[in-house]
Amino acid sequence: MKQEPQATIHPLAQFAATLQWSDVPTPVQRRTEDLWVDWFGSVLAGCKARPVASIVRFALSQGPAQGPSEVIAQGATSSPMMAALANAAASHFAEQDDVHNGSVFHPAAVVFPPALAVAQSIGASGEQLMAACVAGYEVGIRVGEFLGRSHYRIFHTTATAGTLAAAAAVGRLLGLTPAQMQHAFGSAGTQSAGLWEFLRTAADSKQLHTAHAAAAGLMAAYLAQDGFTGAQDIFTGPQGMAAGMSSDANPAKLADGLGTRWATAETSFKWHASCRHTHPAADALLQVMQQHGLRIEDIARVTCHVHQGAIDVLGPVTSPSTVHQSKFSMGTVLALAARFGHAGLTEFDAEFLAADTVALRDKVAMALDPEVDAAYPQRWIGKVTVQTTDGRVLHGRVDEPKGDPGNTLSREEITAKALRLADYGGAVGAQAAQAAVARLWQVGSWPRVGTLVGDATH
Amino acid sequence: MKQEPQATIHPLAQFAATLQWSDVPTPVQRRTEDLWVDWFGSVLAGCKARPVASIVRFALSQGPAQGPSEVIAQGATSSPMMAALANAAASHFAEQDDVHNGSVFHPAAVVFPPALAVAQSIGASGEQLMAACVAGYEVGIRVGEFLGRSHYRIFHTTATAGTLAAAAAVGRLLGLTPAQMQHAFGSAGTQSAGLWEFLRTAADSKQLHTAHAAAAGLMAAYLAQDGFTGAQDIFTGPQGMAAGMSSDANPAKLADGLGTRWATAETSFKWHASCRHTHPAADALLQVMQQHGLRIEDIARVTCHVHQGAIDVLGPVTSPSTVHQSKFSMGTVLALAARFGHAGLTEFDAEFLAADTVALRDKVAMALDPEVDAAYPQRWIGKVTVQTTDGRVLHGRVDEPKGDPGNTLSREEITAKALRLADYGGAVGAQAAQAAVARLWQVGSWPRVGTLVGDATH
Repeated sequence: MKQEPQATIHPLAQFAATLQWSDVPTPVQRRTEDLWVDWFGSVLAGCKARPVASIVRFALSQGPAQGPSEVIAQGATSSPMMAALANAAASHFAEQDDVHNGSVFHPAAVVFPPALAVAQSIGASGEQLMAACVAGYEVGIRVGEFLGRSHYRIFHTTATAGTLAAAAAVGRLLGLTPAQMQHAFGSAGTQSAGLWEFLRTAADSKQLHTAHAAAAGLMAAYLAQDGFTGAQDIFTGPQGMAAGMSSDANPAKLADGLGTRWATAETSFKWHASCRHTHPAADALLQVMQQHGLRIEDIARVTCHVHQGAIDVLGPVTSPSTVHQSKFSMGTVLALAARFGHAGLTEFDAEFLAADTVALRDKVAMALDPEVDAAYPQRWIGKVTVQTTDGRVLHGRVDEPKGDPGNTLSREEITAKALRLADYGGAVGAQAAQAAVARLWQVGSWPRVGTLVGDATH
Repeated sequence: MKQEPQATIHPLAQFAATLQWSDVPTPVQRRTEDLWVDWFGSVLAGCKARPVASIVRFALSQGPAQGPSEVIAQGATSSPMMAALANAAASHFAEQDDVHNGSVFHPAAVVFPPALAVAQSIGASGEQLMAACVAGYEVGIRVGEFLGRSHYRIFHTTATAGTLAAAAAVGRLLGLTPAQMQHAFGSAGTQSAGLWEFLRTAADSKQLHTAHAAAAGLMAAYLAQDGFTGAQDIFTGPQGMAAGMSSDANPAKLADGLGTRWATAETSFKWHASCRHTHPAADALLQVMQQHGLRIEDIARVTCHVHQGAIDVLGPVTSPSTVHQSKFSMGTVLALAARFGHAGLTEFDAEFLAADTVALRDKVAMALDPEVDAAYPQRWIGKVTVQTTDGRVLHGRVDEPKGDPGNTLSREEITAKALRLADYGGAVGAQAAQAAVARLWQVGSWPRVGTLVGDATH
């Protein structure tokens, strides 16, 4: 009987299947814990939102009445898949979860929920959970970088690369061999989906995207553990992900610096409560306003000098009609930042359609900038030109927006942000949120991953 | 507050949300019942296969211990999503389920499982179930035609268009309004996925593809019922399905002849147990062998004159190492057909690597044929040239392979095929299969859709 040639194990599968917490350098371990606590705030901020509630209701209706995995702050438990579906939907709603610049990928929303659900189910330790999450971050970020800018023009990379990230994290927790991990990648990649079209009418798909990625990646890993096979070269094969969904894929990115370059630690925290593409320009506007002592009334026109990705994602949003859509409106974000010094969840909710906001919003335009575009996505430079009502032309610039690795948040800032988000979400009380956040910082010492909020198992 | 312009309801969403069984012409009703019984045989043939068993185990582990929906012939019930996941995985395994030529799409596998699961859950009538399935067929086929040949070169249309088909069928059962149906389409399309890359190593992804399409489409419909919104133009929007996954999409196909052209009735039954792309050439070879009284030993070389899609899908399979892979080997299929008069499940299992099969297999080649390629996918013409060992060059041709609408199967043939498949699968005894098939023919008179096989609820 003729045999297929033995499949080569891709370095990324080898890495994801064998990563130990002790392999991760100490600063990256600490940064992973930072990302974990920061993620938790986003879940609490989003878990009661309408679209999230729909996904939670569906997940609870399709799973068991009780299960080993926590549906966070919903007073419910379910099977790992259903808990992952629900928690991932909650993670991305407030637009405050983390982002990796180079891949334009939001890892937390698709890595922590499935990993947590499985860790609770199998009784993994905190270190095992964190190691699995680093595997998920490293894989997802590299897949996002691999798929490239042409992919991101049409596809929501957090949804597509996110399926691989979820499979890697869950696969590591399940102890997949490298060969099984490669099968899990094949099964994840062939379920990889998520289109930006929903932005045009501010539809709810973002919550579905993270939910789908988490659940599909989780399924891929469980199936691989059970002997189910997947494509051996789902990334670069002639009918694989790049062939179907990218025109500028770069295979070298998949294994770039594995074990030496820690992409997890390159991940940025979000400071404004909006699409990341708006942050550099918002910070640049704040910089020029501060430098020149500008008031709102002084501003006649703002031109944001941006990369093409910002135009692709934000361009369709000219007249936002919902809070969510307004977070993809460059004009709205800059108007709120100018009015209040920051564009937070509260400001969006209360002020996105206020007359002062709309007036300033409509003075904001975007223009493609060669320097900013060339630096992107490795660097997200903020550049704005402000024309004042008295005829001056002023320039603002930031090279690293707040929350980026070189301008990161302290643990105090992360804790404060998480508690603000918890308060905004209203799903748990202040004391419970404080206790939970304090516990979450100790994840590295947990012998067994338990319930994050109160005791949801009874 | 500015409002988005009121979304236009696409005729396809309008149609799917309002179709009544009484709108369906009588011959199309009868053909739908034919497809229903034919599908049931495929589930019984596949439900114990290894990759299917993995998905069934996963589904049962993530769902409730009991539920309203039947996991067919597994002695289990679960929630609608988990039953759909399991039954859809089983439907496509034996490669004997139906196919629509123009869209190169296998509707049964992704329509009947989610529709059945939901019908059992909500207590729908047989007519409601059948009407919903017609909605699923009409939508899925048109989406497949819309996505076109460029899509099919990389993507498994049954997986991608299948997600929309499942959403339409389930959405109709749930009584979605046209606006809700459009949201369901948006949520389905943004989860639409499935790459052909798995064929290269004969991986198990086909079962995952139908399972994923059924479950994701079902979720999309339930979410829409709960007010969850999706992209309004997931098909032709600038960041929609066509933009991301096709270069020759034809929007006119989406609404082509709605209510007058019944694509359901254009669906073909499979006669050989192999990839449909092999059937025309296999029938043409049988034709020329019969006409000239050829024996196996007389054949020196066979050239199959095929369309590009056959080369894309079958070309990578040069030396099949598994039964499943051999069903994508043109040479193997022709060798079995020549040796046994048909290429059935039993012949594949026992003979795909027999010396006589391999010897003939290696004499078979494919060549792109302009006439066949131009007719495809509306018509699947079979053309072969046979060189004989005594130096003759003979031509075989069939214009409509057995099982196509103009050369369809009788109800006796469908019953016999279903029972053969049930016997092959070994999941239910002959008597139980006969009783079930007899019941299934009566679906139109069921006041409430019950369990298909025995009593699986206890």
